Amino acid sequence: METKEAMPTRTEAVMAAIRRRVASRSLTPGEKLPSIRRFARDMQVSPSTVVEAYDRLAAEGLIRSRPGSGFYVAGSPAPVAPRDVEPRLDRAIDPFWVSRQSLDAGPEMLKPGCGWLPADWMPNAAIRRAIRALARADDAVLTDYGATRGSPTLRRLLARQFAAEGLDAGPEQILLTPSGTRAVDLLCRFLLNPGDTVLVDDPCYFNFQALLRAHRAKIVSVPYTPAGPDIALFNEAFATHRPRLYITNAALHNPTGATLSPSTAHRVLTAAAAHDLTIVEDEIFADFEPEPSPRLAALDGLSRVIRIGSFSKALSASIRCGYIVARPDWIESLIDLQVATNFGGPSPVAAELVAATLTDGSYRKHLAGLRNRLAKRRREILDPLEGLGVVPWTLPRGGFYLWCRLPDGRDAAEVAKAALREGVVLAPGNVFSVTQSAGDLMRFNVAQMNAQVLRVLAQALR
Amino acid sequence: METKEAMPTRTEAVMAAIRRRVASRSLTPGEKLPSIRRFARDMQVSPSTVVEAYDRLAAEGLIRSRPGSGFYVAGSPAPVAPRDVEPRLDRAIDPFWVSRQSLDAGPEMLKPGCGWLPADWMPNAAIRRAIRALARADDAVLTDYGATRGSPTLRRLLARQFAAEGLDAGPEQILLTPSGTRAVDLLCRFLLNPGDTVLVDDPCYFNFQALLRAHRAKIVSVPYTPAGPDIALFNEAFATHRPRLYITNAALHNPTGATLSPSTAHRVLTAAAAHDLTIVEDEIFADFEPEPSPRLAALDGLSRVIRIGSFSKALSASIRCGYIVARPDWIESLIDLQVATNFGGPSPVAAELVAATLTDGSYRKHLAGLRNRLAKRRREILDPLEGLGVVPWTLPRGGFYLWCRLPDGRDAAEVAKAALREGVVLAPGNVFSVTQSAGDLMRFNVAQMNAQVLRVLAQALR
Repeated sequence: METKEAMPTRTEAVMAAIRRRVASRSLTPGEKLPSIRRFARDMQVSPSTVVEAYDRLAAEGLIRSRPGSGFYVAGSPAPVAPRDVEPRLDRAIDPFWVSRQSLDAGPEMLKPGCGWLPADWMPNAAIRRAIRALARADDAVLTDYGATRGSPTLRRLLARQFAAEGLDAGPEQILLTPSGTRAVDLLCRFLLNPGDTVLVDDPCYFNFQALLRAHRAKIVSVPYTPAGPDIALFNEAFATHRPRLYITNAALHNPTGATLSPSTAHRVLTAAAAHDLTIVEDEIFADFEPEPSPRLAALDGLSRVIRIGSFSKALSASIRCGYIVARPDWIESLIDLQVATNFGGPSPVAAELVAATLTDGSYRKHLAGLRNRLAKRRREILDPLEGLGVVPWTLPRGGFYLWCRLPDGRDAAEVAKAALREGVVLAPGNVFSVTQSAGDLMRFNVAQMNAQVLRVLAQALR
Repeated sequence: METKEAMPTRTEAVMAAIRRRVASRSLTPGEKLPSIRRFARDMQVSPSTVVEAYDRLAAEGLIRSRPGSGFYVAGSPAPVAPRDVEPRLDRAIDPFWVSRQSLDAGPEMLKPGCGWLPADWMPNAAIRRAIRALARADDAVLTDYGATRGSPTLRRLLARQFAAEGLDAGPEQILLTPSGTRAVDLLCRFLLNPGDTVLVDDPCYFNFQALLRAHRAKIVSVPYTPAGPDIALFNEAFATHRPRLYITNAALHNPTGATLSPSTAHRVLTAAAAHDLTIVEDEIFADFEPEPSPRLAALDGLSRVIRIGSFSKALSASIRCGYIVARPDWIESLIDLQVATNFGGPSPVAAELVAATLTDGSYRKHLAGLRNRLAKRRREILDPLEGLGVVPWTLPRGGFYLWCRLPDGRDAAEVAKAALREGVVLAPGNVFSVTQSAGDLMRFNVAQMNAQVLRVLAQALR
């Protein structure tokens, strides 16, 4: 693992554990800290290490010593960053659990359950160059609403990229959106009536479920295999449920990291044609593939498949911008819908920054570097995880997820709750599972793992 | 009017008219231009002026001379800006008409029907300073998703501003959204079931209608008077339609520019309480008020009123960011809904730029300057409009709209179509009217008016 340089001393590890408990309100102002002896045993360090940690935290003002009584959390601890939201330990484990806990986690929290890379893995130098160039752009770029489809420059860039991948779509067939999620949201509005049935994978990205519930859709799932959806059950689902839409991932499946095989792709499209099914193919992790895998949109020629994506995973999740690629007549209707619900697409300023970063000379190298770094991380984390009895369900070709089974049928939701109390946000399996059949599975983001995460995980599994 | 410095020579005016016809596809490649004699008569210039204009356009390559035959539009005219969307002359005049035509209008088009200020009226210097500061921000600001409520800095700024206006709402009661429209969209999702009835003003902002149709809501309207909704009819609407929600503007009403009076505000709230009505108060034009007018949200204390707004009108429509202010329990549910449908709020980068621009030393002066400039423009445009028989329905206290009646019951939709052929986007009354009772009314944006607009309008009214 690449975490050695980041390994804290034992004293620092104890200090960090206390800070996280205070940040997560597992320890609240005025509350007594664990005794030195007990905490030393829990953390597997010597009592003198805990004494030193407590003394240093008292010097910082986070805790106070009451002679003869012990250490207490100080009255109003100065937050590390100004925030008015704290992780809620009492939240139900539902499809919102991971998003809310990880989006609102403070900098003290560790987030191996989250769906993004650490900020220092991103192409920050190229983004800063793009921002400096933006400061010299025309007034109209800085202040006008922009065209309804979004930046022509960015759409032409995307059209060229799609053509290289065998997908023939002109810039006028691309609609920029404020995010990849928003792209799926617009499509659900366009394609669904309340009560329509939508097919998803089991497991699938938890937010597909949250989104479909917001649309009052009936959700039906098909088990995902390491080669794509189980085709026999996929076909069965038509007879039983008559779904209107299938939402899935291309390239690297979330959460499993699996890749659709060519033959499964062909069968999915054959079944879709037989039953007049529309497919939304979310390729948000495509940049992380070592080699391009089959794309339903390219095979189908955008007749019943709609492709969506965004730049949040490899470029920036702060400069929010996503896209939809679809038939021209559908794009025309989607524009009206996006005008009605957002008065246009993404921030033109955001689209400008994305286009400039994508065309920065360093970007191709950045992507290659990410892929190498993630491959190394995936390899390095396997041993320590298997040492805890945590075993990958499949070995992904790329990306940052490992979908793993916990030992002895352990309840991932309980493990996640225990870890949250220690300031670690995990992603328990059932938030991804419509049928709630992933109770002993867990999704790990290898880029967010370190020695402290492994320590908390070991403790939560004990 | 302040348009003198921008007044083109007669030759330039003729050239611009031809360019607009080509841009709007009123003249298509290969088509013959009007004869010199006819065009000179239409434009009220001498034939030699038209000859000079045609010659110069031929030198530019936009048109070609065929000796003995006349002038023709060149085969593939180089577009002024790269665009793949042109205004569609065949579009039906519906609530999308103004938005689509004005958002996708090229730089050659004039847009007195649009809902924004010219780019050079905006605080561009302050925005450029904010962008340069952004280039030095932490990596996390540039690439992380950010907290679910959006930038704490911006929310604290807003909370202070609201407190100064008498609205007591903490930063945790503010949810940032990607736009003001998106704020209303989220609220409709949160508050409405398909088939629910929603009350709007007649006339009202056309996009409220487009949005409510997307939500399958039943739309009922109440006539708007210069002091707010007609209270007798407002009360009648409850008995007949049992609306769930009322969406209206605070500060300056769109399209009329009227302001809610204190007594109407009180009666609206009394009726709302009696019938358990929720109100969305859109204050997007608040910055343009000379003096603050009554706010339903402040009177009501955010019990049944939800306030929304954005920075698109006075700061930037490109750096997209809006907000919702509501009861804490409603905000909590809205966060889940925004995570489900957009995986969070606006671009954190956008929120950062908005916060930095709002706190720039020049911003208060910018707003005061805008108000003065608009007041002058409103006064200056009245005479020329009245010269055409176009009369304001009311004289607004601020903002950039004049809601005017056309002479002799002229059909505003026909006038708008004729003007579009001349490259001018107008906003005909019925796009704002649920009952289609504003057929001879028109909304003018005084900041987008100039001599050429008046000339085209005069011609279209003839």
